[in-house]
Amino acid sequence: MEVPEVVVNRLPQYVRALRQLQAQNHDVVSSQLLGYILQMTPAQIRKDLSYFGRFGKQGRGYTIAYLLHVLQDILQLDHEWNMAVVGVGRLGRAIISYPGFSPEGFKVVAAFDADARQVGQSIGGLIVQPMDELPVTVRQKSIQIGIVAVPAAQAAEVVAQITQCGIRAILNYAPVNTHTPLDVKVRNIDPVLSLQSMTYYLRSNDTGN
Amino acid sequence: MEVPEVVVNRLPQYVRALRQLQAQNHDVVSSQLLGYILQMTPAQIRKDLSYFGRFGKQGRGYTIAYLLHVLQDILQLDHEWNMAVVGVGRLGRAIISYPGFSPEGFKVVAAFDADARQVGQSIGGLIVQPMDELPVTVRQKSIQIGIVAVPAAQAAEVVAQITQCGIRAILNYAPVNTHTPLDVKVRNIDPVLSLQSMTYYLRSNDTGN
Repeated sequence: MEVPEVVVNRLPQYVRALRQLQAQNHDVVSSQLLGYILQMTPAQIRKDLSYFGRFGKQGRGYTIAYLLHVLQDILQLDHEWNMAVVGVGRLGRAIISYPGFSPEGFKVVAAFDADARQVGQSIGGLIVQPMDELPVTVRQKSIQIGIVAVPAAQAAEVVAQITQCGIRAILNYAPVNTHTPLDVKVRNIDPVLSLQSMTYYLRSNDTGN
Repeated sequence: MEVPEVVVNRLPQYVRALRQLQAQNHDVVSSQLLGYILQMTPAQIRKDLSYFGRFGKQGRGYTIAYLLHVLQDILQLDHEWNMAVVGVGRLGRAIISYPGFSPEGFKVVAAFDADARQVGQSIGGLIVQPMDELPVTVRQKSIQIGIVAVPAAQAAEVVAQITQCGIRAILNYAPVNTHTPLDVKVRNIDPVLSLQSMTYYLRSNDTGN
């Protein structure tokens, strides 16, 4: 069964909300409460979850432990995923040191930089490698996710190098649109895009708009 | 005219793509090329842009300068927006120093922390203030956007404090779902959620899934 990408993109938020509810000792959750937490309608919640089977009983809600189990399994969150960071400037270093990845099974196992002055340095226990070692290291360390932390001007080339190694998932921090083959997933982390999508709503009340 | 939020959320990506095309000396862009860049169908591009008037001529494409002008105006990107960062740990400091905000009109003009040991320190030219100064500073400096850079456990309280000051746009870096009044927009920056939305697609070819 084909699950729309827009639904897949929301599932991690379901998982996060369900874990919060479980930590607060809830056993069951209604689509109404889930909708309240996720700022969605109960109907949308029920539609999203209907892709993955019949979880809820009318009027009773979803059993949190079971729903969480199914969603974590679908998203393969029980796996460990090895990641390579490309670019070890200020941003790349922050990513390598970020404590939030590892508890979720995401491990930065290699770091690369095109700048010879960075190569050989030790950052967070990793020795920065030159770009030409990328293909071999990706194979040897079973790296499945690439993190792009280079300036905008270098992002396209780095994305091409990463995908040529067979990596099919990229977390892109460079503020540019990148091109990839259709079977490669890219998620962009760009706080400016997020800010720009809110200013639309910041109209002064006194302008009459 | 009511523009769906999902469309508004995409507009900053249109702006970014159009600026890239302009920098490459393009004057006109087809919905096909825009769709290629943004990984959307041409029909979806035309539908999104139809909310904002009739820009394109059949078979000729969109005039980039004009479309860019209109979208930047709709998103109020010509404005300057003052922002406050709450939480000046490693993440908050990186946000205060991030060079990508200011060229786009987003200025961090104040920094706050609940920890008395952080208050009074100078970070990127800002003196860290205690939380009880938030309401007055928000008014005095016309702050319209709050950035939450505190640990998960403190995020709910900080979000409440920010919204009580009348701020209606929040960029949340804490890895939790937060509650806000309906007229407050929240955008979450959480690389783990982005990663978790890609692992769904990283099925091994040999598992038969």
